[in-house]
Amino acid sequence: MARKNAFYAQSGGVTAVINASAAGIIETARAHKDTIGKVYAGRNGIIGALTEDLIDTGKETKATVAALKHTPGGAFGSCRFKLKDLETSKREYERLIEVFKAHNIGYFFYNGGGDSADTCLKVSQLSGKMGYPIQAIHVPKTVDNDLPITDVSPGFGSVAKYTAVCAREAGMDVASMCATSTKVFVMEVMGRHAGWIAAAAGLAQDEPTDPPHIILFPEIAFDKAKFLKKVQQTVKKVGYCVVAVSEGARYADGTFLADAGSVDAFGHKQLGGVAPVIAQMVKDELGHKYHWSVADYLQRSARHIASAVDVEQAYAVGKAAVEMAVAGKNSVMPAIVRGKGKRYSWSIGEAPLAKVANVEKKMPRSYITRDGFGITQAGRDYLAPLIGGEDYPPYKNGLPQYARPKLVAVEKKLKPFKL
Amino acid sequence: MARKNAFYAQSGGVTAVINASAAGIIETARAHKDTIGKVYAGRNGIIGALTEDLIDTGKETKATVAALKHTPGGAFGSCRFKLKDLETSKREYERLIEVFKAHNIGYFFYNGGGDSADTCLKVSQLSGKMGYPIQAIHVPKTVDNDLPITDVSPGFGSVAKYTAVCAREAGMDVASMCATSTKVFVMEVMGRHAGWIAAAAGLAQDEPTDPPHIILFPEIAFDKAKFLKKVQQTVKKVGYCVVAVSEGARYADGTFLADAGSVDAFGHKQLGGVAPVIAQMVKDELGHKYHWSVADYLQRSARHIASAVDVEQAYAVGKAAVEMAVAGKNSVMPAIVRGKGKRYSWSIGEAPLAKVANVEKKMPRSYITRDGFGITQAGRDYLAPLIGGEDYPPYKNGLPQYARPKLVAVEKKLKPFKL
Repeated sequence: MARKNAFYAQSGGVTAVINASAAGIIETARAHKDTIGKVYAGRNGIIGALTEDLIDTGKETKATVAALKHTPGGAFGSCRFKLKDLETSKREYERLIEVFKAHNIGYFFYNGGGDSADTCLKVSQLSGKMGYPIQAIHVPKTVDNDLPITDVSPGFGSVAKYTAVCAREAGMDVASMCATSTKVFVMEVMGRHAGWIAAAAGLAQDEPTDPPHIILFPEIAFDKAKFLKKVQQTVKKVGYCVVAVSEGARYADGTFLADAGSVDAFGHKQLGGVAPVIAQMVKDELGHKYHWSVADYLQRSARHIASAVDVEQAYAVGKAAVEMAVAGKNSVMPAIVRGKGKRYSWSIGEAPLAKVANVEKKMPRSYITRDGFGITQAGRDYLAPLIGGEDYPPYKNGLPQYARPKLVAVEKKLKPFKL
Repeated sequence: MARKNAFYAQSGGVTAVINASAAGIIETARAHKDTIGKVYAGRNGIIGALTEDLIDTGKETKATVAALKHTPGGAFGSCRFKLKDLETSKREYERLIEVFKAHNIGYFFYNGGGDSADTCLKVSQLSGKMGYPIQAIHVPKTVDNDLPITDVSPGFGSVAKYTAVCAREAGMDVASMCATSTKVFVMEVMGRHAGWIAAAAGLAQDEPTDPPHIILFPEIAFDKAKFLKKVQQTVKKVGYCVVAVSEGARYADGTFLADAGSVDAFGHKQLGGVAPVIAQMVKDELGHKYHWSVADYLQRSARHIASAVDVEQAYAVGKAAVEMAVAGKNSVMPAIVRGKGKRYSWSIGEAPLAKVANVEKKMPRSYITRDGFGITQAGRDYLAPLIGGEDYPPYKNGLPQYARPKLVAVEKKLKPFKL
């Protein structure tokens, strides 16, 4: 097999561990120099490929690449930019081929969620449909945990841990104050269509009276009267009430409780701010003093409290992607496969990309309690191992020390391309 | 000296380390059994004294008391309840004396901020003004860092560390996304009247282009045009802009940018939600896509990322308070005294309560840059040592294991008291 270069890009919302996948790819490619030459990263994701703005990861030291394992954000830049089908976005795919040819790229590693898997699938078809030989491997990543086939999406375990830790800590704060002050605390978490992250808050609960007392999932239509009744019962019984609410919480007719009105490049509505809506509702209807939080990016960038399991899995899917490429595979995605035993174990399997792209994994109804406000033992059994272990970054002067890659640009060989 | 019991209460908003002070008090009192008998904690702060709802800390195991050192929230319950002067609140002070007498209490340890120092001062005057012999020692605590005399208020260092860590992490997230998505991130932090916490975000900045790019302090009147210009310049130069804003940010006429309208028991306005206001302003005037966060209680309960220096100081002021009591002192507060050398050092000094109560320490103007949007080297020199060191709690199954005190009630001896 003739030695070819590889292209790697980060896509969509970044996570606390996406750079661990990047490290897995770069380090593993370096161990396969007979097959893979350079690893070029797209600056700002796929846009870097289109604009021929490539970063030579070969210029990064071994120490910097290793430090990516504990560095949040997207080290090479990510983007929200979706390629449409081969016909509609023909100009873009032709440009990709032009750039790949110019830089002798034969491997395409795309690190993203469902939308990106779709792009990766299309790139994997360039050999058949447009005659350019390329192997495209998708590297799973999304805090939303909505990728199918894989038991979990790298990135989710860390945001789940963050959410559970915060629910426990803030819950203890409210418990101290509730006699004379805040009685209801509303904590908003990410999760546009699926309540995976909100569900993870439930892990904070060891005893039935522990917070969070109510979880609001996108999967369960919001019933105001039922919700307020549960809040009131909880305040009466426990003295306070902690609510974890998914940004995607909605009424029966599908209307989001909070709708910022704007849409992102994928056409998704930009949400945020359901916590103040819920808090105000509680104040207006029940008169309780409230506090609320919207962690937003803090939750998905919280590398300081990452799940060790998640970090390990993120690295493993990057490593496996390169190994699959070296083995001649195309149009696949490394997936996390959960072991059967009682003690948590996992291994890497292989998912065909055609079955991954544009399929959204919903949370099973069986993970949500009958009343719709909590997680069941089945949900707990699924979630608990994913937040296992701590993987602290190194600190200096009280602050985590994150990688600062040099991001050296590869010399351009082509004419500019207008996006 | 006849052996007397001690009363301990937590007051006002809790912190990640107030229980470390509790541990310092309880452990040190246990080492002075010849002078101090039982340590009774007020359930829900001073209210517990008024309602004779006392917790016998002697029933807590050594392990539980030690675990308080790494447990956030207020283990015995706190409250927002302010005693007025001796004349106005005569009924309450008489009741305190009644409860103290009934339970042979001769030591009063009050763990709180400025308002609580005022209450503690009044209790310290009960000997002289109402003939009941008591030694009242204030134990400093407030995330707002606005207590005078002490170099820092325990609780602040940890929230400062949280804020700096989050600014760094979320900043890296935004940096990855800014090419096609979020360009401006607004991170709201606590600090009603003083910008100490907002200033701490500035520690995340190692290079001039690092986030946060703009800090909005309550001390500097908000100038919309100047702010928007700085945002636009930053986006142009760096590609994105991270703004850390204090909940107390206000216009020149004193109006808060966000004003929830309600007031707490101390008559303070309940603030929150300035981040969405700023974000919307940026969107409306400059058209940039934004994200925003309001960490609220998450920031002050984040024991998982506490500052080791802060934990140590919180414990030390608790310990010193008991030692001062044993030495016969009254109406004082242990204060943190910063050493003179270049290398950070600190010791415990003694502040007269009369000089602490109701005095609010403002941030020196010299800590804020001339343009009002950042911190100076002097500010950095003051803040940096306070976030030093990590002091992780123990974990089990991916979650921090916090103390669960038994909170055994002391038998009541008096008739009920109506608050």
